[in-house]
Amino acid sequence: MRLETETWTDAAAVETDLALLPVGSTEQHGPHAPLGTDTVDAEAVATAAADRYDDPVVVAPAVPVGVAEEHREFAGTLWTSASTFRAYVRDIVRSLAAHGWDRVVVVNGHGGNAAALGEVTARIVRHDDAYAVPFTWFDEVGEHSSEMGHAGPLETSLLQHVNPGAVRADRIDDAATGGSDRWGEWQGRVNLAVDSHEFTENGVVGDPRSASAERGEELLDLAASALCALLDAVRERDPRPRVGE
Amino acid sequence: MRLETETWTDAAAVETDLALLPVGSTEQHGPHAPLGTDTVDAEAVATAAADRYDDPVVVAPAVPVGVAEEHREFAGTLWTSASTFRAYVRDIVRSLAAHGWDRVVVVNGHGGNAAALGEVTARIVRHDDAYAVPFTWFDEVGEHSSEMGHAGPLETSLLQHVNPGAVRADRIDDAATGGSDRWGEWQGRVNLAVDSHEFTENGVVGDPRSASAERGEELLDLAASALCALLDAVRERDPRPRVGE
Amino acid sequence: MRLETETWTDAAAVETDLALLPVGSTEQHGPHAPLGTDTVDAEAVATAAADRYDDPVVVAPAVPVGVAEEHREFAGTLWTSASTFRAYVRDIVRSLAAHGWDRVVVVNGHGGNAAALGEVTARIVRHDDAYAVPFTWFDEVGEHSSEMGHAGPLETSLLQHVNPGAVRADRIDDAATGGSDRWGEWQGRVNLAVDSHEFTENGVVGDPRSASAERGEELLDLAASALCALLDAVRERDPRPRVGE
Amino acid sequence: MRLETETWTDAAAVETDLALLPVGSTEQHGPHAPLGTDTVDAEAVATAAADRYDDPVVVAPAVPVGVAEEHREFAGTLWTSASTFRAYVRDIVRSLAAHGWDRVVVVNGHGGNAAALGEVTARIVRHDDAYAVPFTWFDEVGEHSSEMGHAGPLETSLLQHVNPGAVRADRIDDAATGGSDRWGEWQGRVNLAVDSHEFTENGVVGDPRSASAERGEELLDLAASALCALLDAVRERDPRPRVGE
Amino acid sequence: MRLETETWTDAAAVETDLALLPVGSTEQHGPHAPLGTDTVDAEAVATAAADRYDDPVVVAPAVPVGVAEEHREFAGTLWTSASTFRAYVRDIVRSLAAHGWDRVVVVNGHGGNAAALGEVTARIVRHDDAYAVPFTWFDEVGEHSSEMGHAGPLETSLLQHVNPGAVRADRIDDAATGGSDRWGEWQGRVNLAVDSHEFTENGVVGDPRSASAERGEELLDLAASALCALLDAVRERDPRPRVGE
Amino acid sequence: MRLETETWTDAAAVETDLALLPVGSTEQHGPHAPLGTDTVDAEAVATAAADRYDDPVVVAPAVPVGVAEEHREFAGTLWTSASTFRAYVRDIVRSLAAHGWDRVVVVNGHGGNAAALGEVTARIVRHDDAYAVPFTWFDEVGEHSSEMGHAGPLETSLLQHVNPGAVRADRIDDAATGGSDRWGEWQGRVNLAVDSHEFTENGVVGDPRSASAERGEELLDLAASALCALLDAVRERDPRPRVGE
Repeated sequence: MRLETETWTDAAAVETDLALLPVGSTEQHGPHAPLGTDTVDAEAVATAAADRYDDPVVVAPAVPVGVAEEHREFAGTLWTSASTFRAYVRDIVRSLAAHGWDRVVVVNGHGGNAAALGEVTARIVRHDDAYAVPFTWFDEVGEHSSEMGHAGPLETSLLQHVNPGAVRADRIDDAATGGSDRWGEWQGRVNLAVDSHEFTENGVVGDPRSASAERGEELLDLAASALCALLDAVRERDPRPRVGE
Repeated sequence: MRLETETWTDAAAVETDLALLPVGSTEQHGPHAPLGTDTVDAEAVATAAADRYDDPVVVAPAVPVGVAEEHREFAGTLWTSASTFRAYVRDIVRSLAAHGWDRVVVVNGHGGNAAALGEVTARIVRHDDAYAVPFTWFDEVGEHSSEMGHAGPLETSLLQHVNPGAVRADRIDDAATGGSDRWGEWQGRVNLAVDSHEFTENGVVGDPRSASAERGEELLDLAASALCALLDAVRERDPRPRVGE
Repeated sequence: MRLETETWTDAAAVETDLALLPVGSTEQHGPHAPLGTDTVDAEAVATAAADRYDDPVVVAPAVPVGVAEEHREFAGTLWTSASTFRAYVRDIVRSLAAHGWDRVVVVNGHGGNAAALGEVTARIVRHDDAYAVPFTWFDEVGEHSSEMGHAGPLETSLLQHVNPGAVRADRIDDAATGGSDRWGEWQGRVNLAVDSHEFTENGVVGDPRSASAERGEELLDLAASALCALLDAVRERDPRPRVGE
Repeated sequence: MRLETETWTDAAAVETDLALLPVGSTEQHGPHAPLGTDTVDAEAVATAAADRYDDPVVVAPAVPVGVAEEHREFAGTLWTSASTFRAYVRDIVRSLAAHGWDRVVVVNGHGGNAAALGEVTARIVRHDDAYAVPFTWFDEVGEHSSEMGHAGPLETSLLQHVNPGAVRADRIDDAATGGSDRWGEWQGRVNLAVDSHEFTENGVVGDPRSASAERGEELLDLAASALCALLDAVRERDPRPRVGE
Repeated sequence: MRLETETWTDAAAVETDLALLPVGSTEQHGPHAPLGTDTVDAEAVATAAADRYDDPVVVAPAVPVGVAEEHREFAGTLWTSASTFRAYVRDIVRSLAAHGWDRVVVVNGHGGNAAALGEVTARIVRHDDAYAVPFTWFDEVGEHSSEMGHAGPLETSLLQHVNPGAVRADRIDDAATGGSDRWGEWQGRVNLAVDSHEFTENGVVGDPRSASAERGEELLDLAASALCALLDAVRERDPRPRVGE
Repeated sequence: MRLETETWTDAAAVETDLALLPVGSTEQHGPHAPLGTDTVDAEAVATAAADRYDDPVVVAPAVPVGVAEEHREFAGTLWTSASTFRAYVRDIVRSLAAHGWDRVVVVNGHGGNAAALGEVTARIVRHDDAYAVPFTWFDEVGEHSSEMGHAGPLETSLLQHVNPGAVRADRIDDAATGGSDRWGEWQGRVNLAVDSHEFTENGVVGDPRSASAERGEELLDLAASALCALLDAVRERDPRPRVGE
């Protein structure tokens, strides 16, 4: 059940301890995909998983702005400090847990959020009365994951499937040719660049020409399946296990 | 232009310094109205004003969770501390300003956010490179404002207009009879209650039976007009005036 | 009993759980009233109420500097950030509560403190082992309240009564003519000004010519009565009530 | 000039960059001296020095609650965290400096404040646009300083001089016999005790029987002289000197 | 040059803007390797690189405690919050930069520090007057990197090379058999475990039996070479580049 | 036992609740003594005391950077804010206590750390589940203590004893003649200087010509003895005593 559209009386009647918190970003996605791509994608994956899951799952509203300062040079990108972002996510997870929905998967649509989510969910598990893990959808789509990039084939495809018309089809060629083929500027395993404008002219990494609505449908199916499997694991998880016990 | 659905290249082409940041809440709105009421209403007012305004206005995505701990005893209510909320709003306004959209109206849909927004916007004006003011839509609808309550006729009407079907019509009678006619428990001008469950059984304050989609349409028109008038004033405002100069 | 003038042994002997914390400000009050007006007034109201209350009431020393950055352009105005102010007040209330005086009314003399006090007292009630409410004296003087302004007839009158000589009588005409008749610069219900020098040349809002020591005596009586009634309510208050129980 | 009793217009007319900020404490001072002793004493020293200084000196209102958690077991003691205290003092000093009074002596009446004041004044000198130093009056009274204790002969004497009647003369014998002759419990140079109730039964350290109003007069004279000499030095101080230049 | 052993006068004479800050951890490394393994290893790599680099490089003392709460159930593990750790590292990097050594590589020996270092170095680059990147030595040793584990062959080997005798050779068999072959408990790409005792009985991940001092020598050579290559890149780096310019 | 060189299994086998946390600094020590002097000295004292103490004592790795901003003008000095330093020390002490070593002496080698350590250890005793006290070695060496200075005879001697070769013997004459004979610039009991470059040209205070390895041996013996006596007292200490009980 999506909290936004339910009443509190209906929420009170749900019997579950599982919740999903979609977390997106408002940030540049090249000349062809909208600034809200990450939020739309995260919400789509969360909703699809909740819909197909066999038990009720509470879906919180999506966090629309995250850790995206790396795109600050591209117009329209919004961001918070990582510290503010963690506080915002933690407060929301704690209020979910206050209603008994204390096993929370944070469904993430933006790579730049991942480290902050790892830190805050571990803190929640160790110090709050809740269990929480982050799930980044494009890491959970099998072979496709290797083509992630930024505003590349994966994000573009998923958006074309869940929100046809959101992608400017006529700009995809420009998107591909004005972008970069790799995230970052690397010396060994170290990325020397902190901002994306240092290595991509139009904000794109990867080739969105291999995107399609069909591929998006497949990505959604893969990600939702993976998320359902994770919900199974989270539902059964002993939050404070010890090996050998 | 709504940032979520635009690309960065389109955002870069807009010539304006005006932006709107809708701020809602996910909180109980009685047995008849959804938890997302405040967010939907704030977004509707912001979008309507931007649509009818003569100059371009950037509309940021809505902040979906705010200062709503006072409803914590009602299932599904989410909240952050006032301090986290201020940090989240301030970071977003500063990133809007970084793109040149440095005159920002925070379009608020939840009374509990108002004090925190007053504090953070004053801080932005005094100490950041931006001008910001809060605008709470239900304070700006003329005579109607006196009937605000909570989940009462105003919020219910606006929702019925902008999102028909979101309101459970069959529960409005229950909503009215199980609610309270006044926010708070008062001794003189002091509210002794910090949480809404101290004075309302079902979360409602006011009588939503006087709500209607028609009234909602009127409310939207009034609020959007007031917001456009405010945009005029903000556009012309000297951010650092001195009387007599 | 005023803590400042009592010994700890006498404080230990008091049987009460009621305390008052006066909170003032050091800020401009026009050419005729001193910078310490708000502190003096808050202390006077707190002391008068404690004196006439039928049970013992502990009176803490007054907090002399508050949220007054809006007057920063007028010499002598001192201020803290709202965040520092909340921390200072919260720490003091918690130390009062540590001695068993855990029902605290914060007696406020400055409008600029009100929002911060509302936030911090609610936080204390919800998360600390104490009950606290703010009481702003000039909101509790019946019909007079509508004439509040700033350095206007109310504050001036109370000061003339409790501290004759503090007000420069020979400047009251100038105070009246060089001031403003309204706080703020308004577009609808939104105040576009964050600082008082944007709308008043000499810092005054309202007409202090209608002030008098006699009126001050009446104001003190009204405010002290209202505060005693609040102490009754606070003494009986269930800190964690639920409607219908 | 004492800010509390002056108007902003008078404050604006003062030509000086020197200010004093008295800092006291509300804390146990044995069975014979009031909880407000430190605040009264700090104010008295600051006022006496300002009165006799040859140039104008701004005197801010006294900070009434400081770092006194070590007396928490004695009724009526109020305290803030050291962190809150530093923030409160720093904000006030910065607002003094905003009016051009940017050479500030913090006149301290409580030993427990000293470390926090040392830290915050150094931070102000290094990172804010102001120069500030702490001055603890009982360290600056010559031979007397060695008898400081707590609620002992020095504090008691000064209070007897500046506020006759504040000290309960009939309890001084009890104060002396029920107290301790040393602050702390020591192993070498390390104090093992964090709170005063660990080593003094009635809160007193030292023998207040050697106190007198005459001695208080002498103490005030010594402290005020020392403070005036410090004002001379502060007035001439290059805030950012380098040896040999 | 290692700062610890140099005088300030020698430090003042160095002409470079390059500095290394080793960052370790004090945490369990199985029954065979000491708690200080990460610190020793990070220092060894930093020193080796500085020694062989053609230009002078300042080496700061190693930060000995980091983000290691995941090992809290194993005796002797020390940790700070990620937030404290970031503040500590940031302050040190800023003080390095204050002396002109404003191109800093943070040489990291502990996987648990990596995310926090990524966040804080990006913040330094964007908002402080310094350029900083993290370098985690075991990510930069070619094919070996895939065998990292925890207290496994890599860390053990390097220690055996740089600090013969630190490893308890007689416990390596136990270390191998009582450990785990994988870090974490995984559902898809999500690690369900927040602490290492959830998946390893003796703290080991991987098989330290394939460790040797010879392998350690090779690892040190590989890591130091990679770090020198990184120093080259950092020395030449435009801290604020833009693609295409 | 020194944690750095022990395994967790050995640490788990130790039966004690006593721990030492050495705290140093990386800061100028004149032209003759290395930047790491304070850290080396603090570690030497802690290790010597642990070695000779009759019960096991856990020795944590030394904190290498502290509150040393006062030396910022001398190359190579590193520092953190006092606030960061307190957080770092507090986190480490709490993790020591998590393993049962909850009586901790912080062995300090730098005067600039003392006030911050006093604050943080008192906070730990009052609010965490641990007992902690600071011990500054050069305050505990009898008559010698009066000659402390900075980079003077005491620090130089101890270093010559524990780390022969670390001191540049050929610069000691220069150190003595280019230094100052007093810390600070004083008006009465107030130090007007916040940084050491304001009163010493080469960073030295005191005369290191009276240093010798023999004296260092004596200093180490005195300090270690005093620390052992303190460990006795800490071992027996009732953390929450009340006089008379």
